[in-house]
Amino acid sequence: MTYAMIGTWRMAYEGLCKGIDLLSEGGNSADAVELAIKEVENHPFFKSVGYGGLPNENGLVEMDAGFMNGNTFEVGAVMGISDIKNPISVARELSHQHYNSVLVGTGATQWATINGFEHQNMLTERAHKIWEKRKKEIEEKNLSPYDGHDTVGMVGLDNNGSFSVGTSTSGLFMKRPGRTGDTALVGDGFYADSDIGGAAATGLGEDIMKGCLCYEIVRLMGTGVSPQDACDKAVYAFTDKLKKRYRKIGEFSLVALNTKGEWGVATNVEFTFAVGTEKNKPAIFIANPTSDKKTNIEPITQKWLDEYAKRIKAPLDD
Amino acid sequence: MTYAMIGTWRMAYEGLCKGIDLLSEGGNSADAVELAIKEVENHPFFKSVGYGGLPNENGLVEMDAGFMNGNTFEVGAVMGISDIKNPISVARELSHQHYNSVLVGTGATQWATINGFEHQNMLTERAHKIWEKRKKEIEEKNLSPYDGHDTVGMVGLDNNGSFSVGTSTSGLFMKRPGRTGDTALVGDGFYADSDIGGAAATGLGEDIMKGCLCYEIVRLMGTGVSPQDACDKAVYAFTDKLKKRYRKIGEFSLVALNTKGEWGVATNVEFTFAVGTEKNKPAIFIANPTSDKKTNIEPITQKWLDEYAKRIKAPLDD
Repeated sequence: MTYAMIGTWRMAYEGLCKGIDLLSEGGNSADAVELAIKEVENHPFFKSVGYGGLPNENGLVEMDAGFMNGNTFEVGAVMGISDIKNPISVARELSHQHYNSVLVGTGATQWATINGFEHQNMLTERAHKIWEKRKKEIEEKNLSPYDGHDTVGMVGLDNNGSFSVGTSTSGLFMKRPGRTGDTALVGDGFYADSDIGGAAATGLGEDIMKGCLCYEIVRLMGTGVSPQDACDKAVYAFTDKLKKRYRKIGEFSLVALNTKGEWGVATNVEFTFAVGTEKNKPAIFIANPTSDKKTNIEPITQKWLDEYAKRIKAPLDD
Repeated sequence: MTYAMIGTWRMAYEGLCKGIDLLSEGGNSADAVELAIKEVENHPFFKSVGYGGLPNENGLVEMDAGFMNGNTFEVGAVMGISDIKNPISVARELSHQHYNSVLVGTGATQWATINGFEHQNMLTERAHKIWEKRKKEIEEKNLSPYDGHDTVGMVGLDNNGSFSVGTSTSGLFMKRPGRTGDTALVGDGFYADSDIGGAAATGLGEDIMKGCLCYEIVRLMGTGVSPQDACDKAVYAFTDKLKKRYRKIGEFSLVALNTKGEWGVATNVEFTFAVGTEKNKPAIFIANPTSDKKTNIEPITQKWLDEYAKRIKAPLDD
């Protein structure tokens, strides 16, 4: 038995460190995944998840989250929830119900309220300013409003061999009210089976969901394929198929972990992620697709990290 | 090239006949699937889809629908939409958008309104009476409120080799506001790839989604397995796995169609469905699981049909 955790984007790092600490002390993967994602949700400068997330076209922060227990296949999810501090905790709590385990819109927010989940106005002053600026740009320059769709996804394995996976996002910046992506759709945005492993996705949900990529990666790992080969095989085959069939393709990235604590990543865009195992302490890496349908992975540089820290807190032009 | 269509439950029949007529005249599968599902949505006596569907615990009819084009992989879906006559048409229209193609809650209803879709109070007097009666029973007899979760799913193949799949439901009777199931989740409740075929699901969505069954059935057909074997293999393997892992299991049924117009069905409960092909005119069948993990399929009897017709229109006890 071993423990490990992998999470999408640089923003996963601090939460993942806490999750790994918990796992190293014998904590279970569900607690570790929830703890790690809450850390990301609570951080005001991560602009695509939880507090500080960028709002929809009306200025409201609407969030999606999903959770799956790889032992029991329990699934819980919320879509279009608002004003709730930690959507991942709502998704996890819902996963314990046989009926009504996936809730959308005001029904999701009301259920969370009735069940005592903490309320918060999720729109920070910074996110509000970015939204106002973008509205102006869209009017003046006729820009496409849509970018920024970085979900935090965490896959955790604990020393008892149990997998959990969780996801959380405020979704596409300037999305239409009620828009949801792959984040809360099981098989599309997340999947786990403790006999095999788990996977999570980030990127343009409208395209990820067309390929059921998380289910497919877990399935491939179940045939004996390594997490890296499973990610490469599923993601690049689907990228080719989508280009041919749909003639356009959004950006997306996938992470996976198996029962040995081995991990893998595939992406069609520059992608950072964090991973920690029993043997290797948490670290941030950067991945890029190669021309031969593999993934090039390198440790992140201090320069990249410094620029990132500067960028997410940079003063906004008025 | 050939054409064919398969749909879940006895309720699919009249719509499927219209869809098959359209396909026989050279119509495309997207039009045929939408036409067929609208017929079911419009029928006031089908109590789990569209007009006449049973409401949530608050008495409101909240609906889910999904649509996928097997050529382009375009996907559109709505969850928790209300007051809209034909959710399937909204899902299909949304599938043409690269962004914001899946909408939930009031955002879905508002988008449909802004885009000119017809409004209707979906709660019939009959459904209202059933809801009031059930509320009383729950209070007095402490009954589990949940049953009735029959999604209409249609898979269509046209003479140009194009697949479409659509689904529509009012969901679990007495569900919590905002509850959604597998119906609008691509890969879980529906999937289509025109190189292979398509599949659709009905039953307890909370459990169907745990297995990504529609994606899995299409994937299996893509390896050369017949639709019937693909359904048997995916559904009964997953049923066993869920019993072992989750220790309980809802009722569900799947239908599938391949590029030759061959079809298959698997179910863990008595299940009726309708199917029509170029060679065989539309007919209703009844399926049951066998002890050796296969599916027994027989033509429906006139007696069954007569009892069904009587049942859905039976006077309600006051």
